[in-house]
Amino acid sequence: MNTSSTLRPASLPEQDLAERFQTVRERTLDLVAPLSDADASAQSMVDASPAKWHLAHTTWFFEIFILRDHLEGYRLFNERWPFLFNSYYEAEGARQARSQRGLLTRPALGEVRRFREYVDQAVLTAIPFLAERCGELLELGLHHEEQHQELLLTDVKHLFSCNPLGPALWPMLPVSMVGDVADSGSAWREFSGGLVEVGTDGDAFAFDCEQPRHKHFLNPYALARRTVTNGEWIAFMEDGGYRNPALWLDEGWNWVKAEGIESPLYWRCEDDGHWMHFTLAGWQPVDSAAPVVHISLFEADAFAAWSSARLPTEQEWEHAAQGLDPDGGMQFDGEYEVGPRAASDPKGLSEMFGSVWEWTGSPYRPYPGFRAAKGAVGEYNGKFMSNQFVLKGGSFVTPRGHMRGSYRNFFQPEKRWQFTGLRLARDLT
Amino acid sequence: MNTSSTLRPASLPEQDLAERFQTVRERTLDLVAPLSDADASAQSMVDASPAKWHLAHTTWFFEIFILRDHLEGYRLFNERWPFLFNSYYEAEGARQARSQRGLLTRPALGEVRRFREYVDQAVLTAIPFLAERCGELLELGLHHEEQHQELLLTDVKHLFSCNPLGPALWPMLPVSMVGDVADSGSAWREFSGGLVEVGTDGDAFAFDCEQPRHKHFLNPYALARRTVTNGEWIAFMEDGGYRNPALWLDEGWNWVKAEGIESPLYWRCEDDGHWMHFTLAGWQPVDSAAPVVHISLFEADAFAAWSSARLPTEQEWEHAAQGLDPDGGMQFDGEYEVGPRAASDPKGLSEMFGSVWEWTGSPYRPYPGFRAAKGAVGEYNGKFMSNQFVLKGGSFVTPRGHMRGSYRNFFQPEKRWQFTGLRLARDLT
Amino acid sequence: MNTSSTLRPASLPEQDLAERFQTVRERTLDLVAPLSDADASAQSMVDASPAKWHLAHTTWFFEIFILRDHLEGYRLFNERWPFLFNSYYEAEGARQARSQRGLLTRPALGEVRRFREYVDQAVLTAIPFLAERCGELLELGLHHEEQHQELLLTDVKHLFSCNPLGPALWPMLPVSMVGDVADSGSAWREFSGGLVEVGTDGDAFAFDCEQPRHKHFLNPYALARRTVTNGEWIAFMEDGGYRNPALWLDEGWNWVKAEGIESPLYWRCEDDGHWMHFTLAGWQPVDSAAPVVHISLFEADAFAAWSSARLPTEQEWEHAAQGLDPDGGMQFDGEYEVGPRAASDPKGLSEMFGSVWEWTGSPYRPYPGFRAAKGAVGEYNGKFMSNQFVLKGGSFVTPRGHMRGSYRNFFQPEKRWQFTGLRLARDLT
Amino acid sequence: MNTSSTLRPASLPEQDLAERFQTVRERTLDLVAPLSDADASAQSMVDASPAKWHLAHTTWFFEIFILRDHLEGYRLFNERWPFLFNSYYEAEGARQARSQRGLLTRPALGEVRRFREYVDQAVLTAIPFLAERCGELLELGLHHEEQHQELLLTDVKHLFSCNPLGPALWPMLPVSMVGDVADSGSAWREFSGGLVEVGTDGDAFAFDCEQPRHKHFLNPYALARRTVTNGEWIAFMEDGGYRNPALWLDEGWNWVKAEGIESPLYWRCEDDGHWMHFTLAGWQPVDSAAPVVHISLFEADAFAAWSSARLPTEQEWEHAAQGLDPDGGMQFDGEYEVGPRAASDPKGLSEMFGSVWEWTGSPYRPYPGFRAAKGAVGEYNGKFMSNQFVLKGGSFVTPRGHMRGSYRNFFQPEKRWQFTGLRLARDLT
Repeated sequence: MNTSSTLRPASLPEQDLAERFQTVRERTLDLVAPLSDADASAQSMVDASPAKWHLAHTTWFFEIFILRDHLEGYRLFNERWPFLFNSYYEAEGARQARSQRGLLTRPALGEVRRFREYVDQAVLTAIPFLAERCGELLELGLHHEEQHQELLLTDVKHLFSCNPLGPALWPMLPVSMVGDVADSGSAWREFSGGLVEVGTDGDAFAFDCEQPRHKHFLNPYALARRTVTNGEWIAFMEDGGYRNPALWLDEGWNWVKAEGIESPLYWRCEDDGHWMHFTLAGWQPVDSAAPVVHISLFEADAFAAWSSARLPTEQEWEHAAQGLDPDGGMQFDGEYEVGPRAASDPKGLSEMFGSVWEWTGSPYRPYPGFRAAKGAVGEYNGKFMSNQFVLKGGSFVTPRGHMRGSYRNFFQPEKRWQFTGLRLARDLT
Repeated sequence: MNTSSTLRPASLPEQDLAERFQTVRERTLDLVAPLSDADASAQSMVDASPAKWHLAHTTWFFEIFILRDHLEGYRLFNERWPFLFNSYYEAEGARQARSQRGLLTRPALGEVRRFREYVDQAVLTAIPFLAERCGELLELGLHHEEQHQELLLTDVKHLFSCNPLGPALWPMLPVSMVGDVADSGSAWREFSGGLVEVGTDGDAFAFDCEQPRHKHFLNPYALARRTVTNGEWIAFMEDGGYRNPALWLDEGWNWVKAEGIESPLYWRCEDDGHWMHFTLAGWQPVDSAAPVVHISLFEADAFAAWSSARLPTEQEWEHAAQGLDPDGGMQFDGEYEVGPRAASDPKGLSEMFGSVWEWTGSPYRPYPGFRAAKGAVGEYNGKFMSNQFVLKGGSFVTPRGHMRGSYRNFFQPEKRWQFTGLRLARDLT
Repeated sequence: MNTSSTLRPASLPEQDLAERFQTVRERTLDLVAPLSDADASAQSMVDASPAKWHLAHTTWFFEIFILRDHLEGYRLFNERWPFLFNSYYEAEGARQARSQRGLLTRPALGEVRRFREYVDQAVLTAIPFLAERCGELLELGLHHEEQHQELLLTDVKHLFSCNPLGPALWPMLPVSMVGDVADSGSAWREFSGGLVEVGTDGDAFAFDCEQPRHKHFLNPYALARRTVTNGEWIAFMEDGGYRNPALWLDEGWNWVKAEGIESPLYWRCEDDGHWMHFTLAGWQPVDSAAPVVHISLFEADAFAAWSSARLPTEQEWEHAAQGLDPDGGMQFDGEYEVGPRAASDPKGLSEMFGSVWEWTGSPYRPYPGFRAAKGAVGEYNGKFMSNQFVLKGGSFVTPRGHMRGSYRNFFQPEKRWQFTGLRLARDLT
Repeated sequence: MNTSSTLRPASLPEQDLAERFQTVRERTLDLVAPLSDADASAQSMVDASPAKWHLAHTTWFFEIFILRDHLEGYRLFNERWPFLFNSYYEAEGARQARSQRGLLTRPALGEVRRFREYVDQAVLTAIPFLAERCGELLELGLHHEEQHQELLLTDVKHLFSCNPLGPALWPMLPVSMVGDVADSGSAWREFSGGLVEVGTDGDAFAFDCEQPRHKHFLNPYALARRTVTNGEWIAFMEDGGYRNPALWLDEGWNWVKAEGIESPLYWRCEDDGHWMHFTLAGWQPVDSAAPVVHISLFEADAFAAWSSARLPTEQEWEHAAQGLDPDGGMQFDGEYEVGPRAASDPKGLSEMFGSVWEWTGSPYRPYPGFRAAKGAVGEYNGKFMSNQFVLKGGSFVTPRGHMRGSYRNFFQPEKRWQFTGLRLARDLT
């Protein structure tokens, strides 16, 4: 595949791009520092991948789509590895079955690190040339890696949650998670709607699915000033929310019954009736003031019905976020936190970015005029546009610089191992 | 449940309502006339229901939501039958498992006919009172029964297709299905889009999910003048459409591989390379000029990709259908046909109603401002609004009077035992 | 296939054979007399077959292995039906999938009756010739049909049990099922064992798997004088038998947990704590004195462990039954009973034949020197000799003349829709 | 649990026991020496366990059944670990699900090694006391560990076979596997049968299921002098053995079709038509003279049918093995070989011990008079006595001292990841 004729150069200056490349690549290594080779090789369910696989797959992305396709004379690190680390790109041929990634105990973690060094050096050496020739792909590769940073954390969390010893990835930070923020003023922020624009057309990086910018008509609506908290969720549970079919989508109710769902993922009720949940710091008490997290779209939708409200559409959310700084709030670039914090300022629209991914009621479908990227990277987004719902915002482990208002994250409605929460909406007419 | 306080009277005059009631109820009986007790009791897959069950369930709907809830002193035909014939209404309590409907060899078909007579007489006797008090529900019951008429036919077709003897429900009509209509002029009809209105607010009957009427912004677009034909589908197949992952949604591709899909449902290739398909008149040759039918959303979407086009959105389709007569074209009120006919007039927008249900690219989600009906009938539509796609138009076995532009039919994207086809769309910018 | 060169003539005189043929064939029709076409066409689970299928399959057996193979000029009733009614004979080619037998709503019950008449007339006309040429197969066909008579009843019982209306096949006989036989004397009958002979070598009919007669060494052992009763089973249940893994085979314990087994099949606990069970006469109270029935090998084995006893081996059982009259006890040739009776005489070895099939601890494997029959009928028994356990005796619906001491019935250890019970054994050393 | 009152002292002198303890325990560590922490932690299928788990489980066996139960004042290494490393002992309470053993990335391999040291020291310190008080259990623990040594190798082999890189556990020994031994003289060894004795009653260690010694009657029979070779298996394959249902047990044929079985496990056909197979030294050419291995009982039974022979019964095999030295042939105490060798001397009964486990046609059921051991260790064998077949002999990786004629290994008939082959038998009458 050679797609260079249609590729844009990078939107960043060459030096910034090199720095960003190093920063992003190093952060991934930082994340796996606490992991043993065994920790990094295990796969706890088919949705999750081993940390080692994330390390290698993100590297494969640069090696294949940038170095192999655009750098003449480049030699693959190992000719047999692309089979191992291709995720889902049909155009790149056969690959290790997704459910069998945890059986790749070889190559060892150390060998994968050497693969990263080999590719990093090749990229950095050629970065002026690559920035010009396929800069768009380089930026895509970095955003791809940032997505996998969050996935890596959700996957390690899931793996550790399956271990009866309940290991912690990180220590608990001294800052208490237990707060109790009193709401003040109205809980809702109102919007008049009308013919608005959503999506992106600008020069800054965005995935293909965020394009093109287009008009959309909105009725007047209101958004909750903050996301739903654990305390509110416990009220829902205590009111029989998980046992009342009238609140649920039909598929959701079947899922609740078939899976025996009674609380968010990772929650466990102690003998004294208090709730604990598994975090990146192991088992911790549930903080009633913090946003609820690890819920499915089905649960979010049922909670909204119980609240006589609804989920926002992705357009309502994006319109409301205009003017907010995606780099405000929690940002994954300093201390490693183990969960979202209680809302800092519930007077505005609080924590729209960097707290929890917020489920919307919008199925993930192409924007009007959508065109998938050319070549194998065209499989990045477009082919997943069925039976998925859009999430907006970003979580406490979404890296700084990765969030923006037009971002469209997506998962199937029953998934909940990601850092997913919700914010209510309602009609104003 | 007593919802009468909020119910509207019927939109039809009382006498018309009585006549319509009798017409609709009799048509259902006509449909099962060729069936034995065994034919009417079998269930060929979990998506399908026995014909006898359709007869009884539609009657249960009138008995429960109208007679029991609104007619004082009404006595159930049999107290144990509501358990058998409730479909999915959680508010109506426990019920026979959907997958076990084919085990209800008792009550016999004759007993179910008596049940229908008993309920019909009660409704007709009280129709002036009922039209006033819960006329809206009476009309809902009739539209509900019309939906089940089409379902009954699709389900019998599936059952008979499983029988190696290939029985026919109806004889083949003398009118040949084999035509060859030459297209003339442009294949596309263009629309300028803009801020349009869709949905219904009027007095005529409509399901809750078609409401409220609301504004929607459309880019300029074009719709194909006719639906895709069997001949075009064969070209897709011969070009390797079912073997090329680049054309498919990821879920669709997994479905193709897992199920070994190679053609529309009910198709079979003869030794000489010609295609036969199973119809309501048994095995018949495929007519290349007739619309393709029994395809999934996944197949429709892949065909559109292969055609460098896309599926229309439901709003595009509905906007284009404004001004067309839903009672034109094929109507299920005279002779019983066994498949859709070749397009009669491909110069306009041909066969928008009454040929095949047309897949759109729109997930079935609530309209802005949607409110589910009160009470158990509120479960009619709203709870199915996940992982389903909207279909528009109506098929050759949709009864006259049941179709309208705002109608939103819906099925999961892999389903294809319904009479489902497609019409292409494309952007004009 | 033509196997006549090796076939023995019938062991019965020609006239007796004709009479027996008519008697057996008529009894099958008697059994389905209370069934509607729908009742006779439904399949309630993959282990069961529709009554209509039993009627046709037993006829297919005569048509294929006798008329087609041995009667020159015979024409099949319908060339397409062998595909429908072959059960599992690979040598006879492709066939309707076992799980799809309930979808054969055509041919109708009446057509299947005509098939039976056609074949019966052909057999009876040619019986002198057939008795000489392939008499062995004619007798096999009759024993085959007798097996299907019992299967037909177990399958109808299962089907009716799935119907919430609980229909009855037969009325309850006036003879009360509720008895209370006091045991007298020792509960055990002792045998000294030694080198004994089991199996059959004689001239009377026997299946291939009962041959050849051979020596087997037995340690001294005792058999319970009667089978385990419902009352004893309730004691097992009340003592936590279904919740104590120490009593169960590992596979059995996994089965109990996975299926949520808490009682024999068809049992239901009323609000007042009394047990009801579904019978051929609908729901009836459990008679504590009657033999327990509808239990799996796993349950039988766990009960034996709880009783500090064990199941007998098939050789112990057969040796103990020598000298007993298989035609004594309950025989399925007069009134139709709906369950096994309480033991009539618990002083001897009571009800060894004609009460319930008795699980043994012997896996169903070939006897030393076993040779399967030649041709397709060689698939009758031998290929099922894995993961099945032998049952001895015969139940209250096993036809008179079908039981004998050497008979080896067999089912998988988790099956319990047959009329299966148990008798305890223990070592005497 | 305290079972000491009924326990026998060890059958070995105290000093020999200590030496044997150290030898066995060290051999297990030797086996995992080539493995990384990731290799040792992965689980490739539910039948297999991680190597680390084998290391810990065998240690748990000593800690629980010997140290905790018999050594006053013993403190568990870690109170939370018994949950992790109990395999299937219901009497020992809840435990990690079998299918989730590969998720135990903690404790790390190093911690498990420390666990072994801790337990080994406790055992060795107290060995005089323990040998007297529960010596029988100590010996059981060592035989248990020897079983797990072989399991560990089969499980690592399976894991490595799932890796497209095809890693080797051991290097290929310089001794060629490719031989071509010409048979000489009769291929069969004849036995006159009669009333023989099988099982063990002696003082030497044996599992409970090998007891008691008892009489069994055998007809005259013959055993093949050597096991079936790869060359013979290829002839079976080339003759359509995997496509001919007449050769197969019904369950076996369903398994072949459902799983798409076409050759022994680990075989792969090269483009040039030659066969390779995966070994403990990675992918190697198939040696036609070496015994076939990694076949199921179903395959063994079909091969025997194709050969107009049968599988031996376990009693025939054991009787024939009387007088042979179980410590002859291949023994797993020197160089580590990667597969069974071609028969050294096909004139006698060659390689009865130490080549491949030989499937018999005998279901694994209790011997007459069998009593399971008291306490939790009574779950060792008895509860598995359904749907398993007995294997005799021992493979090339069964440790020296672990094999004996009365040994009854057992697996389900479809399993083939163990080192399983076959030897033919036939009747002599």
